[in-house]
Amino acid sequence: MASLDGLLERAAALDATDPLAPWRAEFVVTDPELVYLDGNSLGRTPKRTVRALTEVVEQQWAGDLITSWWEHDWLDLPLTVGDELAPLIGAGPGEVVVHESTTVTLFQLVNVALDARDDPTAPAVIGVADSDFPTDRYVAEGIARLRSRGDDRHVEVRPIPDTRPLLPEDALDGIDVVIRSLVDYRTAELADLAGDTTTARRAGARIVWDLSHAAGVVEVDLHGAGADFAAGCTYKFLNGGPGAPAFAFVRSGLHDAVRQPIQGWFAQQEQFRMDDAWSPRPGIARLLNGTPSVLALTAARAGISLTRDAGITEIARTARSLAGFAIEAAEELELPCDTKRPPATSGGHVTVRHHASKRLQQELASRKVLVDEREPDVLRFGLSPLTTTHVDVARAFATLADLL
Amino acid sequence: MASLDGLLERAAALDATDPLAPWRAEFVVTDPELVYLDGNSLGRTPKRTVRALTEVVEQQWAGDLITSWWEHDWLDLPLTVGDELAPLIGAGPGEVVVHESTTVTLFQLVNVALDARDDPTAPAVIGVADSDFPTDRYVAEGIARLRSRGDDRHVEVRPIPDTRPLLPEDALDGIDVVIRSLVDYRTAELADLAGDTTTARRAGARIVWDLSHAAGVVEVDLHGAGADFAAGCTYKFLNGGPGAPAFAFVRSGLHDAVRQPIQGWFAQQEQFRMDDAWSPRPGIARLLNGTPSVLALTAARAGISLTRDAGITEIARTARSLAGFAIEAAEELELPCDTKRPPATSGGHVTVRHHASKRLQQELASRKVLVDEREPDVLRFGLSPLTTTHVDVARAFATLADLL
Repeated sequence: MASLDGLLERAAALDATDPLAPWRAEFVVTDPELVYLDGNSLGRTPKRTVRALTEVVEQQWAGDLITSWWEHDWLDLPLTVGDELAPLIGAGPGEVVVHESTTVTLFQLVNVALDARDDPTAPAVIGVADSDFPTDRYVAEGIARLRSRGDDRHVEVRPIPDTRPLLPEDALDGIDVVIRSLVDYRTAELADLAGDTTTARRAGARIVWDLSHAAGVVEVDLHGAGADFAAGCTYKFLNGGPGAPAFAFVRSGLHDAVRQPIQGWFAQQEQFRMDDAWSPRPGIARLLNGTPSVLALTAARAGISLTRDAGITEIARTARSLAGFAIEAAEELELPCDTKRPPATSGGHVTVRHHASKRLQQELASRKVLVDEREPDVLRFGLSPLTTTHVDVARAFATLADLL
Repeated sequence: MASLDGLLERAAALDATDPLAPWRAEFVVTDPELVYLDGNSLGRTPKRTVRALTEVVEQQWAGDLITSWWEHDWLDLPLTVGDELAPLIGAGPGEVVVHESTTVTLFQLVNVALDARDDPTAPAVIGVADSDFPTDRYVAEGIARLRSRGDDRHVEVRPIPDTRPLLPEDALDGIDVVIRSLVDYRTAELADLAGDTTTARRAGARIVWDLSHAAGVVEVDLHGAGADFAAGCTYKFLNGGPGAPAFAFVRSGLHDAVRQPIQGWFAQQEQFRMDDAWSPRPGIARLLNGTPSVLALTAARAGISLTRDAGITEIARTARSLAGFAIEAAEELELPCDTKRPPATSGGHVTVRHHASKRLQQELASRKVLVDEREPDVLRFGLSPLTTTHVDVARAFATLADLL
């Protein structure tokens, strides 16, 4: 077994040259001894978020009251925050909205994709891999049931393979809409955004990309890939707060075809002309639903701004460095890590498989190492580049090796 | 014209005997000169909300990080807050969930109501009044489009009359699901919750009640009325914060029939057993979708707790007193107020109609009187009993009389 001292020394050396190091001071840290390797599940609290919430609650809400909807542009907050997030995923202005949960957002986009077909009334098949994140499967099944009538299965769900980086050429035959995670939530393996988008187009399908485990840790180029639709969450690497609202991307060329099912007054032209018939706003705004949570959006906005300021290129580079180091350390410590090296993976987390994963997670926690566990046998070590150090990784793995 | 001094004196006397007076100190007030008559649109900021958000952000999120989902029961927050809200609307434990926007909530409940029919695959008609809140109409139309296939109109929307308090006996013939606001957002007129529910049942229809303009200002007895479904928002009289999440009520006897369309991992039994097939949780939890906003729920919870502590009976009584006084004052000042006296109305707001409503709203604002305007000709004077005084009403109406 490798020398733990040597491992820690190498980790410290890597941290010393990490250009992101100064950004760690931007976060609230109450216990400097804690090794937090769950930023891939819930990102830490930026100090600017605390300030932003205080301003919005105590000055805007309490002070300016109802006028804040106009004076502080609350009405357009889902669009403003969307524009601020857009460069992090290779989208343009007016192509992203931030407002609902990831589940609701996926529900909207899959319905939009079905209705954007040449014949929206034709039967349809939604493709999703059995190994994809559960919500992605559940959403597809819910939509299929909703758009069918009992045994008349107008919309069906069909499993697709989850080969990475590329889907096989024939995987999407007969499939209309695909839901696919860019980063596998267990293995951190990346799909080929551009390659799969091309494959889908050739097969006559459209992909709704789930960027939940990618946004804020991988450089994503939706425009470059020619992607049509994407969704993802902001509470992981974007540090937007617990249950922070999700984002939705629709390529601008498709906006006129967007007819989304959850019609509320925030998507209505002339929202306050209450007697008008339904007439949706142009552009991405037609994805809006009801009154959005200003508090949730304020926290999401602060987290997104921090990632933008630090730079997604630098963040992705540190993520690869953390993952490379973690995989090396696991090898040296003989830990059962089955994560491939970047660039095959995102760098956002590495996985150790062990049949006693639940017990190990608890024992790690009792030694001040917080990691994620996913049944039945996965320990996820989240590597959130703005807050995770190589020393954190070394300490976590050394502790795990000690437990084993 | 009445003596303004006399009006103000009477107002002050009413305030002096208002049992709710001590509760005003529970709110953040940055400008004591401001007359805020928009608490029906955005309730003021409770001081306890500021404290609760600080604790959740700085201690739970920043300090306890991911463990807060279990240690601080974040996972069940939509259900916990629902249980805390339940007594305010005459619901029982396990019948209310608080999580999404009102629009999403209405979308869910109308679909649930359609699918709870004896034959969920039969064609259906959704009834909603043309004069009801726009979102209620938009939601119905969106669902009708989603569940139809082009010209094959499997689900249709039909306008119903909006007579108050009671719907005509024959109004719901051929209608399966009704969306109906308990309080008219323009006139504040109340519908007869129990009477209409009975009428609907006789007609073979189910009502999804929209309690948005009722919750927190009217005593609502969903159980007593035998109501099946209800939704409503928490950012008005419940002071839950801008865009605070909405609540959904489903009568417990119907829970087994709930099959909602937006299927996400928070509604799944054994949420973290990621390989399982879709199997929704029992009870109201099956209305959950994705990861809920903990920040938004924290603020909603604080507002709801304040209303519970002050007492909905006392709040409703003060609302009637404020509205009665406002209507009297309007008569004396010869203002074109067309609101009926409580109990025909909720007491939550009174309406003045004037063709120059927009300009008058702005001029009132420049004189530190904030009221709501709804095109084309409505000025709404919101009467939020925990924060609005009779003197506020007198000053607002005196200012308006002066402008006219």
